[in-house]
Amino acid sequence: MTIEHDHEQNLDRLAELAVKVGLNLQEGQDLVLSAPVEALPLVRRIVAEAYRAGAGLVTPILGDEALTLARYRNARESSFDRAPGWLFDGMAEAFAGGAARMAIVGDDPMLLADEDPARVARVGKANAMAYKPALEKIANFDINWSIVSYPGAAWARRIFPDLDEDAAVARLAEAIFAASRVEGEDDPVAAWQAHNERLRARTRWLNEQAFDALHFTGPGTDLVVGLADGHEWQGGASSARNGVTCNPNIPTEEVFTTPHALRTEGHVRATKPLSHQGSLIEGIEMRFEGGRITHASATKGEAVLQKLLDTDDGARRLGEVALVPHSSPISQSGLLFYNTLYDENAACHIALGQCYSKCFRDGGDLSAQEIESRGGNASLIHVDWMIGGADTDIDGIAADGTRVPVFRKGEWAS
Amino acid sequence: MTIEHDHEQNLDRLAELAVKVGLNLQEGQDLVLSAPVEALPLVRRIVAEAYRAGAGLVTPILGDEALTLARYRNARESSFDRAPGWLFDGMAEAFAGGAARMAIVGDDPMLLADEDPARVARVGKANAMAYKPALEKIANFDINWSIVSYPGAAWARRIFPDLDEDAAVARLAEAIFAASRVEGEDDPVAAWQAHNERLRARTRWLNEQAFDALHFTGPGTDLVVGLADGHEWQGGASSARNGVTCNPNIPTEEVFTTPHALRTEGHVRATKPLSHQGSLIEGIEMRFEGGRITHASATKGEAVLQKLLDTDDGARRLGEVALVPHSSPISQSGLLFYNTLYDENAACHIALGQCYSKCFRDGGDLSAQEIESRGGNASLIHVDWMIGGADTDIDGIAADGTRVPVFRKGEWAS
Repeated sequence: MTIEHDHEQNLDRLAELAVKVGLNLQEGQDLVLSAPVEALPLVRRIVAEAYRAGAGLVTPILGDEALTLARYRNARESSFDRAPGWLFDGMAEAFAGGAARMAIVGDDPMLLADEDPARVARVGKANAMAYKPALEKIANFDINWSIVSYPGAAWARRIFPDLDEDAAVARLAEAIFAASRVEGEDDPVAAWQAHNERLRARTRWLNEQAFDALHFTGPGTDLVVGLADGHEWQGGASSARNGVTCNPNIPTEEVFTTPHALRTEGHVRATKPLSHQGSLIEGIEMRFEGGRITHASATKGEAVLQKLLDTDDGARRLGEVALVPHSSPISQSGLLFYNTLYDENAACHIALGQCYSKCFRDGGDLSAQEIESRGGNASLIHVDWMIGGADTDIDGIAADGTRVPVFRKGEWAS
Repeated sequence: MTIEHDHEQNLDRLAELAVKVGLNLQEGQDLVLSAPVEALPLVRRIVAEAYRAGAGLVTPILGDEALTLARYRNARESSFDRAPGWLFDGMAEAFAGGAARMAIVGDDPMLLADEDPARVARVGKANAMAYKPALEKIANFDINWSIVSYPGAAWARRIFPDLDEDAAVARLAEAIFAASRVEGEDDPVAAWQAHNERLRARTRWLNEQAFDALHFTGPGTDLVVGLADGHEWQGGASSARNGVTCNPNIPTEEVFTTPHALRTEGHVRATKPLSHQGSLIEGIEMRFEGGRITHASATKGEAVLQKLLDTDDGARRLGEVALVPHSSPISQSGLLFYNTLYDENAACHIALGQCYSKCFRDGGDLSAQEIESRGGNASLIHVDWMIGGADTDIDGIAADGTRVPVFRKGEWAS
């Protein structure tokens, strides 16, 4: 009884946090909310909370794993290049009209693991191309947006394969509530203000240093990641161009910025598996020359990785570099979540593909051409993968070649 | 065990019927499908069946009763004039691009019964205005479309208030499967071909007669409904302008055409309650002069009725007249379904508001101006209500004043 009560109460607190801190939804603002149907207990709370906060209109877009699978299992070959452009264009129109965006994740990350990777890649590319106008408004922070998560049963069973479903869901729920700072906090909204302040102190220091590059070393890794000209470090709360400060990821532990698309050199080994569109890619190793991936391999899922890199030219270059100490609560949970929202907050990581245009000084006003000239990468994809661990050292390299310790043994050096 | 098995099998057959007969979905055609989440057992079957039939892309739009209520219970007053225009415009774009349309109904028809009728009417009007571009493509039969139903629990409990939920759902499921001609038929697709042929024989005769008006008499009713110039009777299967023959309603028992917006005279009394946007309107009586409603009353829900009539000028004129014998299987079930898809197929009915432009000879090619000049009505609404029963007589009145018996005591006169 007590556990059930806590669970309900924690869902209430997560919904409040999602609307007040995640979105910081404004009086009269519309909201486009996507979620799996399984997450309805949280969706219903968030919608009620959004209206209590003064939402104009909340439009839910509910998905269902079985409907996704029904396509792979029954459709003609020609179906797999199609995407609902009219729906995505409509979302872009809603964002252009001022609507905020919330996504609730909770689906089985391995849903498509048994499907033909070529089909999965084709659907992914068709969706990415069709979703581009909407995604740009999110990636450019035209609007306030946020991603939160719900403990879906299939997801829980992936993480805890030895537990029965109820126990697995309860464990995942605990992990979500703890990482999202709603469990064990008297006032989750205040706890997030303090958390945002700690992250801001880190980004302030990094921005003062204005490093030219970061040098990552660790087992299998010796990688110099050039940083974009005029890059800006960000983390935690973010100010969207509509003037609203939101927390785009709940949870979040990272500080991140834009690397230079042409200036990454060396080799790097993943420290955790990458869960991508239903496939698990393990043992990733890559080599970079002039910012471009010239060699990539994986001990498992290499075909999916190669398809991903073949999406476009920008898919072979970096769009994000992020720092997360090994002592991060998500890292310390010891869990592999098979979900970027969690796993990227367990370790330092880099992302293939599209950069965040906001991660530049005066970022809100740069044209695509200006971003490119400063070294910002462009791609249909943005895929994070983990390169940090307990043995990761990072040096910051200044323009004059001076080195400053940033991480030692997986932790902030100062 | 047997019942459960039959239920699953009947859902399979209904899904097949919906795709093959309801939509007649074409190879490579996209589909936009809306449904309540509760109907997922049928939605999943229809999506799989659609892909097996060669669907390009099926896009589901899932709704949830609790999310609808969350708005009424929590939103600011200004929210109730808002509608998701971007989503409806997107649907119109999908239809323009050739997508078919399916709606699965199954929600609680009384969901909004306890909400402020003024708010319900404002939401209804905002949605109707925003949905107009999409609805026009459906009402004009630009594309093949179909509505089928699912036995939702709240709906079932409205119809069978004395049964427990499981028993109520089982009874409603039986009624849906019987009315939809999937239960008790060896080959539901063939059964629908025969049913369509019987309806076609009725429309052929009515079109040969080309009556100037119909004269309804019965308890509380003495109403002459003028028919539009060049009207055409339709029923059962319908050929959409994209060349596809579909069955837009499953079930269907009616034959129907377009009345003349300026030529209905007399008084009429409803024979069944009207369930409209969550309110039940009972004991409707209306008076028509020159096609316009000059007096309307109801013994219950009159405020909702008056709001409805105030939507626009066309809401006070007729857009459809339909004939259904009292011996129709849905009528004989003796049930009030609180759902137009069923109740309109239990009795002769008329509809306030928008006409079907297709119900004209050469209907596919008429401009809005031509439709108006022939007497076709225009409105944001289209609301059917039942005026036929066991005592209904109908005479057809030819242009020269000759009278021909059409119905006697609720049945076809010949």
